Amino acid sequence: MAHVEFRTSPARYRHWRLAVDGPVATLAMDVDEQGGLVPGYELKLNSYDLGVDVELYDAVQRLRFEHPEVKAVVMTSGKEKIFCAGANIRMLAASAHSWKVNFCKFTNETRNGIEDATANSGQAYLAALNGTASGGGYELALACDRILLVDDRSSVVSLPELPLLGVLPGTGGLTRVVDKRHVRRDLADYFSTRSEGIGGKKAVGWRLVDEVVPRARWQEVVAERARDSAATSTRLPGGGAVELTELDKTRTDDSIAYQHVSATLDRDRAVAEITVAGPSSGAPSSMGEAYAQGAAFWPLAVARELDDLILDLRANETEIGTWVFRTAGDASRVLAHDELLLAHYDSDWLAREIVLFWKRTLKRLDVTSRSLIALIEPGSCFAGSLLELALAADRSYMLFGVFEDVDPDAAPAAVTVGPANLSGPPGNGPLLMGNGLTRLATRFLGDPDALAAAEKSAGSPLAAEEAEKLGLVTFAPDDIDWEEEVRIAVEERASFSPDALTGLEANYRFAGPETTETKIFGRLTAWQNWIFYRPNASGPDGALRAYGTGRRADFDRKRV
Amino acid sequence: MAHVEFRTSPARYRHWRLAVDGPVATLAMDVDEQGGLVPGYELKLNSYDLGVDVELYDAVQRLRFEHPEVKAVVMTSGKEKIFCAGANIRMLAASAHSWKVNFCKFTNETRNGIEDATANSGQAYLAALNGTASGGGYELALACDRILLVDDRSSVVSLPELPLLGVLPGTGGLTRVVDKRHVRRDLADYFSTRSEGIGGKKAVGWRLVDEVVPRARWQEVVAERARDSAATSTRLPGGGAVELTELDKTRTDDSIAYQHVSATLDRDRAVAEITVAGPSSGAPSSMGEAYAQGAAFWPLAVARELDDLILDLRANETEIGTWVFRTAGDASRVLAHDELLLAHYDSDWLAREIVLFWKRTLKRLDVTSRSLIALIEPGSCFAGSLLELALAADRSYMLFGVFEDVDPDAAPAAVTVGPANLSGPPGNGPLLMGNGLTRLATRFLGDPDALAAAEKSAGSPLAAEEAEKLGLVTFAPDDIDWEEEVRIAVEERASFSPDALTGLEANYRFAGPETTETKIFGRLTAWQNWIFYRPNASGPDGALRAYGTGRRADFDRKRV
Repeated sequence: MAHVEFRTSPARYRHWRLAVDGPVATLAMDVDEQGGLVPGYELKLNSYDLGVDVELYDAVQRLRFEHPEVKAVVMTSGKEKIFCAGANIRMLAASAHSWKVNFCKFTNETRNGIEDATANSGQAYLAALNGTASGGGYELALACDRILLVDDRSSVVSLPELPLLGVLPGTGGLTRVVDKRHVRRDLADYFSTRSEGIGGKKAVGWRLVDEVVPRARWQEVVAERARDSAATSTRLPGGGAVELTELDKTRTDDSIAYQHVSATLDRDRAVAEITVAGPSSGAPSSMGEAYAQGAAFWPLAVARELDDLILDLRANETEIGTWVFRTAGDASRVLAHDELLLAHYDSDWLAREIVLFWKRTLKRLDVTSRSLIALIEPGSCFAGSLLELALAADRSYMLFGVFEDVDPDAAPAAVTVGPANLSGPPGNGPLLMGNGLTRLATRFLGDPDALAAAEKSAGSPLAAEEAEKLGLVTFAPDDIDWEEEVRIAVEERASFSPDALTGLEANYRFAGPETTETKIFGRLTAWQNWIFYRPNASGPDGALRAYGTGRRADFDRKRV
Repeated sequence: MAHVEFRTSPARYRHWRLAVDGPVATLAMDVDEQGGLVPGYELKLNSYDLGVDVELYDAVQRLRFEHPEVKAVVMTSGKEKIFCAGANIRMLAASAHSWKVNFCKFTNETRNGIEDATANSGQAYLAALNGTASGGGYELALACDRILLVDDRSSVVSLPELPLLGVLPGTGGLTRVVDKRHVRRDLADYFSTRSEGIGGKKAVGWRLVDEVVPRARWQEVVAERARDSAATSTRLPGGGAVELTELDKTRTDDSIAYQHVSATLDRDRAVAEITVAGPSSGAPSSMGEAYAQGAAFWPLAVARELDDLILDLRANETEIGTWVFRTAGDASRVLAHDELLLAHYDSDWLAREIVLFWKRTLKRLDVTSRSLIALIEPGSCFAGSLLELALAADRSYMLFGVFEDVDPDAAPAAVTVGPANLSGPPGNGPLLMGNGLTRLATRFLGDPDALAAAEKSAGSPLAAEEAEKLGLVTFAPDDIDWEEEVRIAVEERASFSPDALTGLEANYRFAGPETTETKIFGRLTAWQNWIFYRPNASGPDGALRAYGTGRRADFDRKRV
């Protein structure tokens, strides 16, 4: 496999069928057994690998942009008797640790995206389990707004990871069972040790599903629930569909380039130097013009490019441990685009979808296991939505003054807080982190005066001295110190333990409250990563490797 | 080393000096380099191992019970120029993974206990850093209410774990820096990569310490701050000191017995069968009588025994993966003791201390990496504070009816909710979990009706059918099914991956909100466990093993 590509389109799907019937879409999982991304396993029983999930992600995105008429989505299976058997075990058993972890992260993000569509896009997902949903299959259902299970005396939901594989239901399962669906913790414990699963009325009584439906009435009830859901949808009106045309991407061994976003990969220094370009023209005067621009509309185009770049680098460039972000362009144009979108966030589906897409893309950065450094230089446009890149970074450096040797007459760099960075409506801030706070509020946790001062600066371009004083940037070295300070920061990062950096960043980036979402990435994922790495799961005699061989796993019985 | 003992007393301390001067106690760390718990390392520069921490825990406990007059505690060093260098690296490098993890857990619990004393006992801890505090040494300071650092141009605070050892400041450090002290996340990032640390005014400006004090004024300022702290203490009045007499403990290869608590270790089944006896007589009619009973007062005695048992089993019996809890005695006597303590929680230091001790002991169970099963049988006394044992368990089984073969005329088992289980004042519930909720509220998360019904039952002994209906117990099999169901539950537990069970339990037990405390045990510890287990830290060329050898760590540079 040369490298993993995340770009796809319905015409190329091998595993999903997307059908739209007025306000209701149906997304049917029908995995091609021979369609594994990597040789060595068959995707039996609607089990999935990264390739299956890439298509699901694409479908969820297209439903948002290409189907403004859709107000409810039925997620079901195209096979008889099985909804989905979860992640493919042979794939997991054969995968490197870093692959497993990255795969789970992407799976989690897609499921969070499904919940975001339900909560914020008026596209509620309905899991129509026309057969057994086990492991990751049930976890997929858990991400839906409502779970219907066919009542045929054999179809069940189950989380057999612990008893069968010696790992956790680690893509949201444990967290969503108790924190979202409020299954009582002792019942959840029992359920998660019982590989045969639970169906029928007990599944409803324990809150594992919302409803069980006899097979005779299945189609009718699913359709009815979907119609009801569509009828109460908050999907916004607006213009017609926006086609997500194929991204124009050029990938060489040491660079990835799109129209607005480009990255240079420096393998010796273990750094990706990423530049995000601001809009090349002013903002449209209306959403009508934005619709006319379609996928070329700057905020949408740049979000798609950044999203693809993040996914590409995470999957394919694991030794590039530091991502350095720069921006280039006109800050006022960025702010004008933000303004247009935020002004229509509550009235136009496209404006809202683009803001939500930005929110999700920035959240990907928050959970990316790479050191993020923002460099704020003359000619940059860290304002509003693009300022979030600097706020998401582990550190930022802003040049005080100009590069005397390069362009002594340049205007010094400025950063500008904009409405996109503030808390308040819509939502409680348009670009909230997973912890439910804005990046500014997370940054100034426990320091309300500093937060107020930073927010009060909104609209004013801030030079380095002021930005540093307000705490919006980490350091503001001048021309004389810049090169050395930045070089040391980047080189140092490459010299540290990559594991310890991942842990450090996963703790510092999530100061403040925890939510179901952050608990999935923090508590649950961190435990799963540990378990995945232990011989009891992944060693030669571990449960993950022994599964299906007829051998029994041989456990080190010490409790840690 | 035969086994680790947690019982000690000031006369036996090798590493700490406890001095009490009126309302101010001083706890000086002066580690005996040759006093390591295990051979193979020297405890230089006030570095610590489990033995040092056992003494600290003992001192913190005795300050609570044996020093009712103490209203502020100064934590300082008995050595020149160094406060504490943190956990001993050679000890960490030579330790098994399970030892490292258990050591960190106990260290965390002691630090949480220090914060609990500050918040709830009116014994605020003041960290008087008369020299450098690095790594775990600074983490110890972070657990104090206020941090003073001597300003002598050489003393600093630092978290050098990441740059020097390739691990995290994992005993609360990362969490407390941003979530408790509200150091800005990018500054925290910088600080945690800078092994040389930060002192002087910058340490104050970044919120790493509260105050820097010139050496000339050091004694004077520390004394003044301690006096001020004592002057505003909320330490309650009450009777005289209660001496924590040596616990009467008998340990054989397959049993541990105290006066009220006993455990039988079944190594074949990997189970500890633990029985907690209720009070052998009614509650005293006044706190005066309780003082007269001293350490023999049942609620205090049983908490001490249970606490010691938990610590002993965790450290010494890592292959005993399941703890089965039973109680035996008179429920009304348990409730009467609870009533006495809760009635005086706001007026008597001893009443409050015992309740707080119970709270901390139950919290230990919540973070114990063993499966917890409660068996509720005739003759048991799961009521009030003892009912918490069943609520802390991963599952509970309550006999419906009686054991016909054993005692057909016995009274069937009952459970009784009592004031100790309820939310509301004091605190917002006397026995809150680390997540800030009662165990009942955690159990019925998102189900306010069920919570209200359970709370409304307070005071009524509930038979199995009713307890099951109210959701207070998991299952209520009758005599015919009991043996088989319980046997399977216990046997199954022993057949599962110990690692996966630890992860499962660490997720299900902490439904609901997260706090600084739960983030330390969940997010931070889970990441640290993973990092500790990775070759980049603990492999032959890992940073932890390479430290001090002159060799450079050789990292796998893949980001996971």
